[in-house]
Amino acid sequence: MAKANKESRPAATSQASGRPKARLPKGLRDIGPAEIRAEQRMLAKIREVYERYGFEPLETPAIEYTDALGKFLPDQDRPNEGVFSFKDDDEQWLSLRYDLTAPLARYVAENFEKLPKPFRRYQVGPVWRNEKPGPGRFRQFIQFDADTVGTDNIAADAEMCMLAADTLEALGVKRGDYVIKVSNRKVLDGLREVVGLAGADRDGQWLTVMRALDKYDRLGDAGVRALLGPGRTDESGDFTKGAGLNDTQIEKVLGYFDLNEAWVLADLRDATDLSSLDDQTRSLTALRSPRFADELTSSEFPGRYFDNRSLIEDFRVAVGTSAVGSQGVDELREILNLFEAAGYRSRRIRIDPFVVRGLEYYTGPVFEAEITVPVKNEDGQTVRFGSVGGGGRYDDLVARFTGQRVPATGFSIGVSRLASALAALDKAKGEAANGPVVVLVMEKDRLADYQRMVQRLRYPDDGGPPICAELYLGKARRLGEQFKYADMRRSPCVVFQGENERTQDPPVVQIKDLIEGAKAAATIKDSREWREGRPAQFSVPEARMVEAVRGVLARHSLSPSSRG
Amino acid sequence: MAKANKESRPAATSQASGRPKARLPKGLRDIGPAEIRAEQRMLAKIREVYERYGFEPLETPAIEYTDALGKFLPDQDRPNEGVFSFKDDDEQWLSLRYDLTAPLARYVAENFEKLPKPFRRYQVGPVWRNEKPGPGRFRQFIQFDADTVGTDNIAADAEMCMLAADTLEALGVKRGDYVIKVSNRKVLDGLREVVGLAGADRDGQWLTVMRALDKYDRLGDAGVRALLGPGRTDESGDFTKGAGLNDTQIEKVLGYFDLNEAWVLADLRDATDLSSLDDQTRSLTALRSPRFADELTSSEFPGRYFDNRSLIEDFRVAVGTSAVGSQGVDELREILNLFEAAGYRSRRIRIDPFVVRGLEYYTGPVFEAEITVPVKNEDGQTVRFGSVGGGGRYDDLVARFTGQRVPATGFSIGVSRLASALAALDKAKGEAANGPVVVLVMEKDRLADYQRMVQRLRYPDDGGPPICAELYLGKARRLGEQFKYADMRRSPCVVFQGENERTQDPPVVQIKDLIEGAKAAATIKDSREWREGRPAQFSVPEARMVEAVRGVLARHSLSPSSRG
Repeated sequence: MAKANKESRPAATSQASGRPKARLPKGLRDIGPAEIRAEQRMLAKIREVYERYGFEPLETPAIEYTDALGKFLPDQDRPNEGVFSFKDDDEQWLSLRYDLTAPLARYVAENFEKLPKPFRRYQVGPVWRNEKPGPGRFRQFIQFDADTVGTDNIAADAEMCMLAADTLEALGVKRGDYVIKVSNRKVLDGLREVVGLAGADRDGQWLTVMRALDKYDRLGDAGVRALLGPGRTDESGDFTKGAGLNDTQIEKVLGYFDLNEAWVLADLRDATDLSSLDDQTRSLTALRSPRFADELTSSEFPGRYFDNRSLIEDFRVAVGTSAVGSQGVDELREILNLFEAAGYRSRRIRIDPFVVRGLEYYTGPVFEAEITVPVKNEDGQTVRFGSVGGGGRYDDLVARFTGQRVPATGFSIGVSRLASALAALDKAKGEAANGPVVVLVMEKDRLADYQRMVQRLRYPDDGGPPICAELYLGKARRLGEQFKYADMRRSPCVVFQGENERTQDPPVVQIKDLIEGAKAAATIKDSREWREGRPAQFSVPEARMVEAVRGVLARHSLSPSSRG
Repeated sequence: MAKANKESRPAATSQASGRPKARLPKGLRDIGPAEIRAEQRMLAKIREVYERYGFEPLETPAIEYTDALGKFLPDQDRPNEGVFSFKDDDEQWLSLRYDLTAPLARYVAENFEKLPKPFRRYQVGPVWRNEKPGPGRFRQFIQFDADTVGTDNIAADAEMCMLAADTLEALGVKRGDYVIKVSNRKVLDGLREVVGLAGADRDGQWLTVMRALDKYDRLGDAGVRALLGPGRTDESGDFTKGAGLNDTQIEKVLGYFDLNEAWVLADLRDATDLSSLDDQTRSLTALRSPRFADELTSSEFPGRYFDNRSLIEDFRVAVGTSAVGSQGVDELREILNLFEAAGYRSRRIRIDPFVVRGLEYYTGPVFEAEITVPVKNEDGQTVRFGSVGGGGRYDDLVARFTGQRVPATGFSIGVSRLASALAALDKAKGEAANGPVVVLVMEKDRLADYQRMVQRLRYPDDGGPPICAELYLGKARRLGEQFKYADMRRSPCVVFQGENERTQDPPVVQIKDLIEGAKAAATIKDSREWREGRPAQFSVPEARMVEAVRGVLARHSLSPSSRG
């Protein structure tokens, strides 16, 4: 059920029968019990942390005016194709929300006067994208957002990072297995000025620089240098045009980039056993930063590269005399003070110049929450899981409505992606929980008696914990088939009472422990031995049924009413 | 925030500014913290009961193929206007689901082979109706459904009623304040045969009969008799054409209807004090059922009318020789056996011939969950709250896809409506919970210190319960304005430390109890007295801040971390 439908579906109606075909549109999926329960537990934990931080819940509807979402195509009276849109009966365009931030901006603009300032809210819910689906990429997915609207206080940004770290730890991600990376758009803008690429006419060139840097892991130093300069010819002979920087510019860009190496080494220092590090970390360290290559063979690393504070001083050098750059560095230093005062050190929150998300969108600090511990992917390969959420400061969303600048900062979790990360880290087992106890039907005119047994399990009269239970409602008469149903439901045990049991004095019920039975079935090969031994099956007086069923659940450490 | 936008909204763009207007489309609404929290608690309780009954959660997406929802207009390649629809990029029509049953049918048809039979699932989520909104009627609202698919066992229907009763009690609705009414479409079909209105060509006439009966409360015996016969002229002189029944037919219909009176009297008997009954119940009883009118003045009622079992025997008389009618009566009797075996008596679940919901849709037993206790409406009038959910047996939904008949039964709760009922019954206070403790900003260069205090409240190092807290992030410098923010957030108290407090040995913090302060403000009129007395404000050594804040919360019986 976790697969997206990537293909277009066959025509709506099966021509032969005239009946519609039962299928989901592409990029949509049904979600089953195990995943729903894991998600419920996860959302409850996130909610608890967000409320502890003073955020209050808000729910906006799925449908908004297209113009309120800012999703009209430029200069056209037609919605962007990336959103699902339709006309209301008064001919105005409506759209399904594609994120939770645009509706928040609408809400704040609509209710500005009566809201506390700053306004702190969280919202969780589905969003819809009318985009081409891909592996793990759906057209409906859940986001969990926290935003603080109406303050430019940098403490609001710092708090978002602390919130992200606390949330991951509340979900069971160990310190050291994740990191919240922080950067500031203004520092990048400063670098851009220093390199001499300021001005809107250089937007394209700057974008090429950013894209080249993003390929460092794959292309290495020489490849990126070529892409920053005239261009690069790959193995197949294809030429990619470069950013056209001269050597001085390239050194400045790469000098900034090199700062990041400190953190690769910090990873090494944090490790208790150097040989435990994956090859990628070792080789990247050697590749990217020749000045550290020697030190890889030593266990001593220069301390000054290993804390956020000295990294920020390096930033100051990199942005030189750029005013906006200096402002960005000051902001990062202030954020850092707040982290340190609150006890968040670099293993949890780390300055990282390479958080470059949302260039068009964010205006100040930007953050990214990353799972750093290597996990096995579906093909059994060890990979770094990567980003599970992010955010930053955005100052123009409400102004779109009111003309008034309302500074804001926020953090958004991709719920399904985080759930996958937790599953990979074994923090949120998505596997099937146990099903209900099933009372089987032996004598078909005694439904009412069996129903009474079910009800005694659900509402025990001894005041003990209730037991999830149901009456077998299917068509099967034979006990074996009814067992099969109980197996499909993952029932821990079944209860039944036929004529043999009913006519004893006092009447008894048979209880079959299906978990124990499955184990026995794996060892007993002989069918006669099986029949005679009746493994994992026993009878108790009917009056002691509830107690006996509780005993079976306890034997398998199952709670009677909580579902895994 | 609880109001629907009933009106069409002004044009998308404010012409003067070129900026979009911040507003919601009609019939949609934003939901605030108090309502969200009440709803969360409610849904958790419903979920717990449903899981105890062996139902497992399923989530289907909001978007389905229009044809899979069965929402194409007859003989046209255009969706029904009652649903929100749009075309996918392959030109196939998609719609937002308008209930949770149609997607369930699609899901079952698509996954039939691998599902346990019967398949028991619950689903909770929003549905969308492209209809004219009205008071309390929105275009997006939440449903909570349980369905058992793949069995025609009448025990599945009985269980739906028991589930409904248990759910209402789990939500705090007292026994006697609600009733689950049960009927059977087949009994009505039987009556129809007996009255001589069988056959599709009499569909219209039968509908007129049903509509006339539905007006009994308003028009009384004479009015309804007229509408069952030739027709009725109202006070204004307007004539409504009747069903055209003859006197014998009318007597048969009204005889069946009269059975219902037994339950009005049952209400009387259950009441400990007859005078406590609302006038409506008394007058209805007198009006509808002359044979009981005398008994209203007596405290003795004939016992045989007061239990489900004798009512069913009356049904048998009413449906006469109709085969389908007799089958319906047999089913009701079987359901009744199951209720009684499981201990559900007529105060909880009651046979009631006037549950006529979904004539086009349901094929067997139908149920309606009703809050019977009188509540005050918004205008202060005492009214019966009425229906909060319902359901029944439907056997044709899956056949639409597969051609194969898959019998099913289900129960659906209107979540918002039930929430309103609980609020009216005082079972789920929707009022504002307390907000976070706010640490104020006195010296603006000491943000980091204040942030550390906040973090100590959120994560106390004494292992005690965490406290919801936040740093004041707004622009106000003056303490009074920061107090105002804390008041808007409904903070129980604020904490602050200026130079005076910081320089003491040991340093102290000031704590102001805002709840106590508000009480004091109501009594102290003199502003000098106020300033000097500093009501509800005290200072403690900074090291004892967490303990002191806990003391304030305890004084007002507030839990530090749970939010109401």
